[in-house]
Order: sequence, then structure tokens, then C-alpha cells
Amino acid sequence: MGIIVQKFGGTSVADLERIRRVAKRVALTRDQGHRVVVVVSAMAGETDRLLALAREACPEPSRRETDVLVSTGEQVTSALLALCLQGMGYPAVSLLGHQVQIYTDNRYSSAHIQAVAGDRLRKELDQGKIVVVAGFQGMDREGNITTLGRGGSDLTAVALAAYLEADLCEIYTDVEGVYTTDPGICPDARKIDRISYEEMLEMASQGAKVLQTRSVEFAMKYNVPIHVRSSFSDEEGTMVVPEDQEMERVVVSGIAFRTDEGKITIKKVPDRPGVAARIFGPLADEGINVDIIVQNVSEDGLADMTFTVPKGEMKRAMERVEQVAKELGAREVTWDDQIAKVSIIGVGMRTHAGVASRMFSALASEGINIQMISTSEIKISCVIESKYLELAVRVLHKAFRLGEPPSQEGGEASRGEGDE
Amino acid sequence: MGIIVQKFGGTSVADLERIRRVAKRVALTRDQGHRVVVVVSAMAGETDRLLALAREACPEPSRRETDVLVSTGEQVTSALLALCLQGMGYPAVSLLGHQVQIYTDNRYSSAHIQAVAGDRLRKELDQGKIVVVAGFQGMDREGNITTLGRGGSDLTAVALAAYLEADLCEIYTDVEGVYTTDPGICPDARKIDRISYEEMLEMASQGAKVLQTRSVEFAMKYNVPIHVRSSFSDEEGTMVVPEDQEMERVVVSGIAFRTDEGKITIKKVPDRPGVAARIFGPLADEGINVDIIVQNVSEDGLADMTFTVPKGEMKRAMERVEQVAKELGAREVTWDDQIAKVSIIGVGMRTHAGVASRMFSALASEGINIQMISTSEIKISCVIESKYLELAVRVLHKAFRLGEPPSQEGGEASRGEGDE
Repeated sequence: MGIIVQKFGGTSVADLERIRRVAKRVALTRDQGHRVVVVVSAMAGETDRLLALAREACPEPSRRETDVLVSTGEQVTSALLALCLQGMGYPAVSLLGHQVQIYTDNRYSSAHIQAVAGDRLRKELDQGKIVVVAGFQGMDREGNITTLGRGGSDLTAVALAAYLEADLCEIYTDVEGVYTTDPGICPDARKIDRISYEEMLEMASQGAKVLQTRSVEFAMKYNVPIHVRSSFSDEEGTMVVPEDQEMERVVVSGIAFRTDEGKITIKKVPDRPGVAARIFGPLADEGINVDIIVQNVSEDGLADMTFTVPKGEMKRAMERVEQVAKELGAREVTWDDQIAKVSIIGVGMRTHAGVASRMFSALASEGINIQMISTSEIKISCVIESKYLELAVRVLHKAFRLGEPPSQEGGEASRGEGDE
Repeated sequence: MGIIVQKFGGTSVADLERIRRVAKRVALTRDQGHRVVVVVSAMAGETDRLLALAREACPEPSRRETDVLVSTGEQVTSALLALCLQGMGYPAVSLLGHQVQIYTDNRYSSAHIQAVAGDRLRKELDQGKIVVVAGFQGMDREGNITTLGRGGSDLTAVALAAYLEADLCEIYTDVEGVYTTDPGICPDARKIDRISYEEMLEMASQGAKVLQTRSVEFAMKYNVPIHVRSSFSDEEGTMVVPEDQEMERVVVSGIAFRTDEGKITIKKVPDRPGVAARIFGPLADEGINVDIIVQNVSEDGLADMTFTVPKGEMKRAMERVEQVAKELGAREVTWDDQIAKVSIIGVGMRTHAGVASRMFSALASEGINIQMISTSEIKISCVIESKYLELAVRVLHKAFRLGEPPSQEGGEASRGEGDE
């Protein structure tokens, strides 16, 4: 008898047949007595089609007009779903980002939500309507259409759930939930029943694609319970919720990875104060995101500096770095895009020792060399040669016994302790 | 050095190649020193594609959601044209109906414009931008998206020209201008250089498709000069302007026709007060538009009543009429959808006698029987058997010498007087 926000991604609304299936699921939730807000993405492929059109119109399309263009994708889906619901005899109405008054800054194509002023949304809900909201879109204070970046419909759903203080935000997708790792790589990957916001955040930012990173941040900030589940089955999925004691007993919850970064190394750069700023300042000015940075121990006042950047920005980064390296008198600059980053994630790391060494041993046991290491309180990432990625994921999955269901017993604490 | 509103229809923006050609024409106008507002339709075929989707989603799609759906067509074109202009180095910005604040009533799918509050439009123009407006769409006072009905982009263009007190509203289309009649039927049809609002209004409402009827009404009301011209050539088209003396000297300016109506006849209905109301009341209640009504002379207190309705509403109309006829004790009800209506139009009719009889003689000379007649101050319409339509158009075109260019001499007055 509460408010439920349901979000359906592109593959779930890929054609009218599937939109009809979504309508049935929405109707079922309503029949159970809930008030329902539905957030939809563009039909699968539509956003890419529109982006290609924009680039065809103009080699470097302005982001403002690109947003006007691509936001039509969600608009079409929202109207079609509302029509399907009406056809089934349910009162439904579609609302666009500007109609719900999802206010954002004006960073077109990756705008941040500043406020939701959804009077209209509440009014329609109060009148008993199922409200279908076009995801991914908002407007700035001048009324321009903005979009929230890839996966932005997740953010729309979470933001509306927070605004409405909804009982649940359901993210329907084409997989059964959040897995311990990619089942395509590791056949004994297991669906996780419950995961904390912090872990989900690391999983998403380290490469798991099931939820948009910013939507998890938003959910954590406003304590919105998320249920990630499949739109193609009735199985329970994964609950993303505040951390609890149960979770702390699991050392490692999941393994994420990404292959979209390359690394740059500056060799024999003078090891003196201000050098790092000289190198990374220009990259920041160019808007290039540097991820992991490693500096080796200085010899004779000279050190090697290695860092990773997105592959798509490798060329621009190299241009800037080579110039700075020359100015600094460094010996040479090399690059490598055949790398991958594999990360183990778990809130249990806070209270369990020896996790890192177990990770390194597992990789070493297969002869996988670790090129870079980066850690946070609940995550350890290793950069390795990309050809070893699948092997690394499988060996880590096994080392931390992720294929075995966590038991409800006290013995759980021992899980992940094996193999050493 | 003035403000020019340019509207481009669906065939003019059918693909990116053509949108680029439109961009060049817009740029040229701006290079001449004008401030330019461009109104665009959806790419040819897009509106029909979206309407088909709506019907597939729901057999009787709600008009509100249909408007949300189809308005994406113009949104896409407006963004693409703005991108093309930017790619050519021109400052351009797209604006949607709700951003220009084109306020309408909430008759979805055929909304009427109530006000334009285009502060944003003026601001962008003042900043030197080319403003590309998505045609066909507006919003009601609650912020819902509405559309203005087929050909609604013409209305958007005229309304913005009126609001901005523009110097000219150019309607770019796939023909060279307004013709004396359809050149596809009558090879010696001639492009008209100047035509009055009143004549254009009759031409449009009697079947000429070059301009939307309501946009002509709007232009007439606010004295907006319209230039109808081809987007595929640089030829001058047709100016639609206030009536002047020159125009009055031409008896007939053009011939329009439509084939989308059928007729219904109620035979031997009692000829007493209130009968017409009993017949047409129920049709009005159903929202069925009755066009021409003819009642023959009563015999023995019984009369035949004939009227035309749109073919698409024939079935519904027959159901209502047959019921009423039974109640009234009429003998029978018949229908015929093999009819066409041909109309001659000209402000000169006001001051020239004998026009009707010349029309009837011309039709009679080819053995074409007239089934119904309807007249206005500047128009005479005849309903005939549809198979004679092309012949009727050609014989009337010849009878009123429409193939000959109007001379600038006083002798002009005699044009159209021949043949009798």
C-alpha cells in the first residue's frame, strides 16, 4: 500500500511487444494496491541511433542540441507505455523531465540533478493515475532540456523515489540482479541477495554495469532501498540497502573489472615537490580523468610515474604529457592500452585482515603479474595485462569462494578464509 | 534588415541531406542581414510512423499521449537543423513549443493557439541567434504538450510572425507556390503571383493542400504577409496578402476540389418545422462535420434531404441517420461515396455577374451533371460524380481562362469573360 517507483531499461522496452509486457507488470503492482511511478528508458538502440544522427549533422555536435535530440527517445517510450496501460483499462499519464520539474545544472549530456519539484507528479498520483516518467532527462533553470548521462534513467528513478519517499525503487533490467561477478566470464558467478550501498557504489564505479554509479550515490544519500531485478522473470533480484552486520561477515562480496583504461608511464622524472602538479594539472584542465596513480621509489632523485586514463582520451593525454615531460627533462614517456583493472569489493574488508595478500597470492598462483595497485577501505584494485583478465576474475572468484552461497550461520565469517 | 520567419515542411527536411540544404538557405537569409526564425516540421513520414505506433499500442489511443508521441518528430528536426547550422559556423538554438511558450487550449491533436509569450524567443534573437522552432506543437496552461493538427507547422510559423511583427513569413514547400489548380490534373495550371487571404482561405478549405486553413485565418487576422515558395528552387512563389484592386479585376483566381466526402440522402421526409434539427442534431452530437446541405422542393408535404459528410465518418453518420429517419417516418436513406466537390474561387465574383451560369454551362457542355450546389460571396462549389472530377477541373480552368497570365492592362477585367 505504498509508493513504488519502477524503472525499465532499454532492452525491457525494446519494442511494443516488450512494452506491453512491462505494462502488465506495472498493472500487477497497482492491482496489489500500490501507487506506481514508472520511469522508462529509450527503446534499445534508439539513443545510439540519435547520437549517430547528431554526429552526421555536425562532426562535433553541441551538447545542448544533442540533448534536445536524444531526449526524444524516452519521450516516445513514455507515451507508448501510457497508451498500453490505457489500452488495458488503467488510468495512466506520461510526464517529461520538464513537466515533473527535475531541475539540473546545465552540464548538458551529463547534468546533475539539483532539485525535484514534482507537484504535478504528486497531483497525478493523488488522482489515482499511474505516472509514466521519461527517464534520463531534466531541465536547467532557463528551461533548456538536459540529460543525465548514460544510465541516467536509473538516476531519475532513484531521485523520484527519494522525492516521493517511496517504499521501494525497483530497477528492472535484462539480468537477474547484481552478481558476484560477470557470469559471462565466470560460470559459477552467483546472484547476490543483499548488498550495501557502499559496495554497490564500488562495484558500479569499478565496472559493473547493472546500476549507474551516480544513482547509487543518490540512493545512499537519501536512503532509498533499491531492488535490482529482471524484467523477464519473476525471480527476486538483489536488494541494495544500508550496510548491516550480516554483510560485514562476508569478506568479499563481488569482483568488478574494467578494460576501458590505458596507462601512461613517465620514466626518470626528477623527484621534487611540485612535479605531480606539473603533470596532472594540464590533464585536469583538459577534463581528462586520471584514475590510479603510482610513483615508484626514487633512485638518484629520479622516479617513474605511472597512471591510467580512459582509452578514448589516451591520444590527447599523451600530447599533453609528452610536452610536460620534455619541460621536466624526463627520459621518456611510454603508453600501454593492453591493460585491465580487476577489483575485489566487500565491506567485510574493514574488519578482516589478510585480504590483500590473499588476492595477490591468488593472482601469483596463475603467474599473473600485478602492474599497479590501488585500495580503498572496502576495495582493492589491481591493474594487470588485459589478456589475463578472465583468468584473474575466475581465480579470484574461487579464492574468495564467491560461488558458494553465504550461510546464515556464524560459520559465515569463515567464508573467504580458505585456500591460504 | 527585418525579421523573417521561414517554415520548412516535411519533404523539405526529409533527410539530413535536405536539412543541410535548408540550413544553407537559412544562412543565406541571415547573410543578407535579416534576423531569422525557422519553423520545421517532422521529417517526411515520421508523423505517420509515430501515429501507427500509437494505434499499435492502443486501438483508440488517447489524444494526450498521441501528442506527446508525435511531437517528438518536430523536436528531432529542430535539433538536427540547429546542429547543421552550428556545423556551418552559425549561432543557432532550437526551441520547443513549450520553451517558446506557445499556449493553446487543451484540444489535443487539434489545439488552438491562445497566446504566444515568446520572451525566450526574443532574447535569443537579440543575442544574434538563428532560432529553430519545432513546429506543430504547443502547451496548455497546465504544461501538457498539445499539437495543432495536420499542417500545424504553418500555423506555428504564422503565429510567431504575428507575435514578432515579422516582415515576412515564408512557407517553403515542395511546390513552386499556389496554383490556379492542381497541375497534376490540369497541365496548363499556372502559378498565382498574388492572392488575397480570403481567396487563399477558400482555396485551402475547399481542398488546396498548400497551406493549412487555420494558418491563413490567423495570417488574415494579424495581417501577416505570407510567401509560399519552393524549397527546391530560387523562384519567387505566391504572395498571400490583403486584397487589393488589382485582384478584384480577376473574376476567378483558382479552382479547388476535394474527394474526401460522401453524401447521404433521406427520401420523402415530412417537410415540417424542426425536422432539420432532428436530423442534424444527433450528427453534431457525434462530432460529425456536415458540409453542404440541400433540400428539394416539397411535394405533398414530403421532401428529400441531401447532405455531405467526410467519408471516414460515413458509417457512423448512416447509423444515426437511419434511426432518425425511421422515427420521422421517412421512406428510405441512401448514400453515395462516389462524389467530388469542385469549387471556383475569386474575390472578383463580388463585382462580376454571370459567374455561376458560366460555371454551370461549362460543366453542362461536357455532360457533367451537378448534384448539389453551394455558394459563398467569393466561391461556388458543385458536387458531381467523382469520375468526372478531372474533366470538370480542366473544363472550368479553360472556361475561366486561368491558363493565361493576368495582364497588367485594363483589359484584365475582361479575362474570364470569354466563352459564353
